[in-house]
Amino acid sequence: MKFVAEALGLSPVAARRLEEKNILKQAFIRHPFFSDVIDAFKLDRKFGEYEEGTLIAKTVDGVQIVRGYPKIRRALTLYPTIKKHFRGEVVFEEKMNGYNVRIVMFGENLYAITRGGYICPYTTEKARMLINPDFFKDHPNLMLCCEAVGEESPFVPKDVYGIKEIDFYVFDVRDRRTNEALPIREKEKLADEYGFKLAPILAEVHVSEAHEVAKDVIRELGRKGREGIVIKDPNMKRQPIKYTTSESNCSDLSFAFRFFGEYGKDFMFSRIIREGFQAFELDDEEEFKRRCTRLGEAILKAMVESIREVREGKKVCDRMRLRFYDLEVFELFKEHVRRMGVNAEFSEPIEENRSYVVWFYRHMKSTTDRIRHILEGNLWQ
Amino acid sequence: MKFVAEALGLSPVAARRLEEKNILKQAFIRHPFFSDVIDAFKLDRKFGEYEEGTLIAKTVDGVQIVRGYPKIRRALTLYPTIKKHFRGEVVFEEKMNGYNVRIVMFGENLYAITRGGYICPYTTEKARMLINPDFFKDHPNLMLCCEAVGEESPFVPKDVYGIKEIDFYVFDVRDRRTNEALPIREKEKLADEYGFKLAPILAEVHVSEAHEVAKDVIRELGRKGREGIVIKDPNMKRQPIKYTTSESNCSDLSFAFRFFGEYGKDFMFSRIIREGFQAFELDDEEEFKRRCTRLGEAILKAMVESIREVREGKKVCDRMRLRFYDLEVFELFKEHVRRMGVNAEFSEPIEENRSYVVWFYRHMKSTTDRIRHILEGNLWQ
Repeated sequence: MKFVAEALGLSPVAARRLEEKNILKQAFIRHPFFSDVIDAFKLDRKFGEYEEGTLIAKTVDGVQIVRGYPKIRRALTLYPTIKKHFRGEVVFEEKMNGYNVRIVMFGENLYAITRGGYICPYTTEKARMLINPDFFKDHPNLMLCCEAVGEESPFVPKDVYGIKEIDFYVFDVRDRRTNEALPIREKEKLADEYGFKLAPILAEVHVSEAHEVAKDVIRELGRKGREGIVIKDPNMKRQPIKYTTSESNCSDLSFAFRFFGEYGKDFMFSRIIREGFQAFELDDEEEFKRRCTRLGEAILKAMVESIREVREGKKVCDRMRLRFYDLEVFELFKEHVRRMGVNAEFSEPIEENRSYVVWFYRHMKSTTDRIRHILEGNLWQ
Repeated sequence: MKFVAEALGLSPVAARRLEEKNILKQAFIRHPFFSDVIDAFKLDRKFGEYEEGTLIAKTVDGVQIVRGYPKIRRALTLYPTIKKHFRGEVVFEEKMNGYNVRIVMFGENLYAITRGGYICPYTTEKARMLINPDFFKDHPNLMLCCEAVGEESPFVPKDVYGIKEIDFYVFDVRDRRTNEALPIREKEKLADEYGFKLAPILAEVHVSEAHEVAKDVIRELGRKGREGIVIKDPNMKRQPIKYTTSESNCSDLSFAFRFFGEYGKDFMFSRIIREGFQAFELDDEEEFKRRCTRLGEAILKAMVESIREVREGKKVCDRMRLRFYDLEVFELFKEHVRRMGVNAEFSEPIEENRSYVVWFYRHMKSTTDRIRHILEGNLWQ
């Protein structure tokens, strides 16, 4: 704990208070798999200049701070928002739908840190297999900010990318201590040099016409079931802005209403509001009709599916396929999930091509209980 | 204030504390139109046995307590809920879509009390014109619990009933002091005797088949754009239960998303949840498809309408047509609305058939401001 206080410039008492308030939490599990880390804490909330998810680790290389990935703000209309926030050229980068991971090197090994600041065993195992470590030997001060996407994702499994397992797409290269992002050209050069996949850059346009181009890009991404775009200043001097497709908003809503007992009303509300502004800006009559049906179906099909499952005596569950290359990592991941407070069950591992497939079930207890209560003939509230 | 303390069996200090906490509020405006009332307070929250909306009035007849209308609980599924909560026969009464009013007599005049416990000048004027006061001379202990429905409603204007002005439909006759409701047969007899309109009784069925009959009744009411049913024990010994049509849920959602800055997420969420359970219980494939479109359109059309208004430089407003027979009552109503904390504007009264038509505008400031902020190119949150 003392090293955290020193790293953040706090008195030991102040650091202890952050821990008591649960703002500072242990961020890893002591295990030979994480042998380069002696101790590590993460910030569960923004604190001073440090973003939520910032990691403070005592490692074999000394104490390291890995800044949290900054929140990207959202546009609800393309016009005049893009014009108002950027100057000159802007880049549209695909916002891929997975989970946000920062990859760093401590000692001789890579570590993958999820958005909240935990060092994740599952993701770390894959990063060590897929990411070229030479990058970090040449650039020890940098981190790769990636989207971890694919079907075998413990957090956001998606099949729209044709990735059966999981892969990493770099969207930012940042100084891990200052959080400064490299210009897009430099990021591209490094990706080329070290063989990283990049979140696709879809267009580079002048702000004056950006909203028009964005409409087409968004419609096209929507047709493919993709999430949306991040609008970036090529020099990364201005804050990026995100904007999502209707299909992605609706997919979120399906998820939220399938598990309506677990998901917050704010989550649902914000996605519905996005659809309203997008309908206003993008739709002709035909598109609007399709959007209404899409929204209604996203919500109701998901709910009816959960209600039917409970009627059939099942529990409402979210179910993910995972793959481990080392069963020790599976054990670590189980402990990791337990510490994150997730109500989870796992199948027995099934060997397949020198790896192990495991089914990960998150039981949605509140949704299950609330539906059961209603189906037993009880009243709402 | 002393009479309130005495009526509720409280010390004057305890009553004063209720007032300070804003649980006790003045319920009327001192004016010759309310000449039988010397002073009146209402409960803004349930307190002991007294429902929210209970009125405690010092009148020319002495101190009177008029109990608040009890909250009616909601079924999300017809089966097995009806079966579980009732025995023998049940009555399906139409739940009309207006606002809940209790009508009583103080001195020589009728008084109309809205759900929250205010004596409403607008509604009182209409009650004095439309309700036969002899009933109260014969039954001074009773109150008429009515739905005030029609186009000229300051709170819930609806045109589905073919009522151009406003009218009262009695659904309960209750002892105003004990809140005990008369059996349905007695209510019908009294309505017949004194010429009151009743909320339509649509069916009387045995609980064993009630859920099947209810499905047809609900579909039929839905087609007509009506709100739903209240399921009652003919003897009014068990608590009634309400159940609403999809069209009514969607109409609520339209309203909520048209004024999304003013309406709570709980309001929206609960209505969406109702649609999910009703889809599960009632729909075949075709009906389900129509329901999805109806839900999506209810939400998005309303939002787009508000966004367009703001783009055109207008304020988002709810707009109601009212009619006064006495301009003094109009003045009183303006003061009433002001006290209720509503942000309102009124048109000049226009004389029409010995009455005055007035347009009542509620400016939805939060919705207007939030839309304007987005349309100016600002980011969400």
